[in-house]
Amino acid sequence: MTIHFADRLLKSCQEKGAPVCVGLDPVYERLPRAVYKSGETVAAIERFCMGVIDAVGDIVPCVKPQIACFERYGAAGIALYEKVIAEAKARGLVVIADIKRGDISTSADHYAQKWLAGDNAPDAITVNAYLGADSLEPFIKVAKENGRGLFALVRTSNPGGDAIQSLGLNDGRTIGEAVADVVACAGEAPELTGESGYSLLGAVVGATKPEDAAQLRKRMAKQIFLVPGFGAQGGSAEDVRVCFDEKGQGALITASRSVIYAYKDPADTNWQSAVADAAKNLKEQIAVALQK
Amino acid sequence: MTIHFADRLLKSCQEKGAPVCVGLDPVYERLPRAVYKSGETVAAIERFCMGVIDAVGDIVPCVKPQIACFERYGAAGIALYEKVIAEAKARGLVVIADIKRGDISTSADHYAQKWLAGDNAPDAITVNAYLGADSLEPFIKVAKENGRGLFALVRTSNPGGDAIQSLGLNDGRTIGEAVADVVACAGEAPELTGESGYSLLGAVVGATKPEDAAQLRKRMAKQIFLVPGFGAQGGSAEDVRVCFDEKGQGALITASRSVIYAYKDPADTNWQSAVADAAKNLKEQIAVALQK
Repeated sequence: MTIHFADRLLKSCQEKGAPVCVGLDPVYERLPRAVYKSGETVAAIERFCMGVIDAVGDIVPCVKPQIACFERYGAAGIALYEKVIAEAKARGLVVIADIKRGDISTSADHYAQKWLAGDNAPDAITVNAYLGADSLEPFIKVAKENGRGLFALVRTSNPGGDAIQSLGLNDGRTIGEAVADVVACAGEAPELTGESGYSLLGAVVGATKPEDAAQLRKRMAKQIFLVPGFGAQGGSAEDVRVCFDEKGQGALITASRSVIYAYKDPADTNWQSAVADAAKNLKEQIAVALQK
Repeated sequence: MTIHFADRLLKSCQEKGAPVCVGLDPVYERLPRAVYKSGETVAAIERFCMGVIDAVGDIVPCVKPQIACFERYGAAGIALYEKVIAEAKARGLVVIADIKRGDISTSADHYAQKWLAGDNAPDAITVNAYLGADSLEPFIKVAKENGRGLFALVRTSNPGGDAIQSLGLNDGRTIGEAVADVVACAGEAPELTGESGYSLLGAVVGATKPEDAAQLRKRMAKQIFLVPGFGAQGGSAEDVRVCFDEKGQGALITASRSVIYAYKDPADTNWQSAVADAAKNLKEQIAVALQK
């Protein structure tokens, strides 16, 4: 029997020693020279991604490949994206495909069938909830049937997110809180909940907004928080503490650039060691914050 | 010199006689039998899409291929999506890629580089604005440089959109109106505006919410409205009248299922005639509504 996504994720975090995730956002111009061969782009990105997975595979529980960085290269990029997902899964990592899809009816179902069903699908995907609860339904249904998970965008880590997400409603909530309530409600049913008490439907809550995150934790008791913005975007270990429950569970802290580009010099042939060290450092920072 | 997207779109609508768009949302299970060969999926979808483009190419100004229906088939689906865009452009159609992408910083830029730059890119794409104005910036920049356009989701046509988009803010606006104001502001600059007075940044406003559309028309004077939900989703010709300006311009009415599946019987070998007739009918309905 398939293990519930939330249980699988939390168990993996426990085994690896900290609830952290490395974002795979490969940007061609920033790759280490060691992965280049003249005239190649997708092949260089492939060597880089495989190198990062190899470097962090025993250290962290989870990776989050960003599809935009692959989709840019069309069909070849998508083929590589699928290959990266497969490689990370084969390595025993929980894979969250950061695709931020959001659409309605048959379109939402098509996305869900592609990214949440079948042996090759990642463990979970990110989705955009602005289109409302009915746009989430096809994703939830397919995720449930296939032991997969979802993280709906609630509060993003970028500065401009405020202009929409922190506006106040006439009932006292912010827009972010209203979306949180839609997500909490959509993911509430017992059949969507794992033994851990967490739902297969989680939420994306940026590390850069600790006050909001504390409020959102109360509103979304059953949602695992996927927390981007740690490191390069400015979120601190202290900032993310509020995303966890009293047991120190229920959140996954993700860092991308600060780990995968940890080698400062593109000429560094030991770039994988730098990436591994940064992943260990991330893990340690979060473990320490959780002990406080 | 590249002609501004809004001017190009409005000119094309004038030449073809009505501001309408056919959505290409190919669902394998609904295809006419004439396009099948045993064991094929992507190839059957290809024959269907090319057949629809052939059937409506001289009738309507614009098509809107839905990427979810292609992405479902991975790399092969994306390759076909690019082929469909190329075929529709070669046929002289304005192509709006319905991709509803939305992300921040380098991820947004990667999407923009893929879908708004270079000879093979469509004329415009749809984007999700929930992440705020800074998530739109990379798209606007690349669209401007390449004479392309954008349509940001403001008010969607699905019933569940209400639960988020029509909530009231403490300043009297709805969430949909707040997003409209972000979009209007982001697309306001003179260098983003064509000779028609319309911005390269348009808005998606569902045909199923006429009262809201009338309000949104006032808030977004420079935005061309892309209006889904006509036909199969229940929006009437009368409902969409409010999306246009006084000159009967500034909106593009899109219908998908009611046109591309207009043949009732999958065994109909004249399915292309049925599709062409439905496109003519759509055009006529909108033309009549605009004359009132």
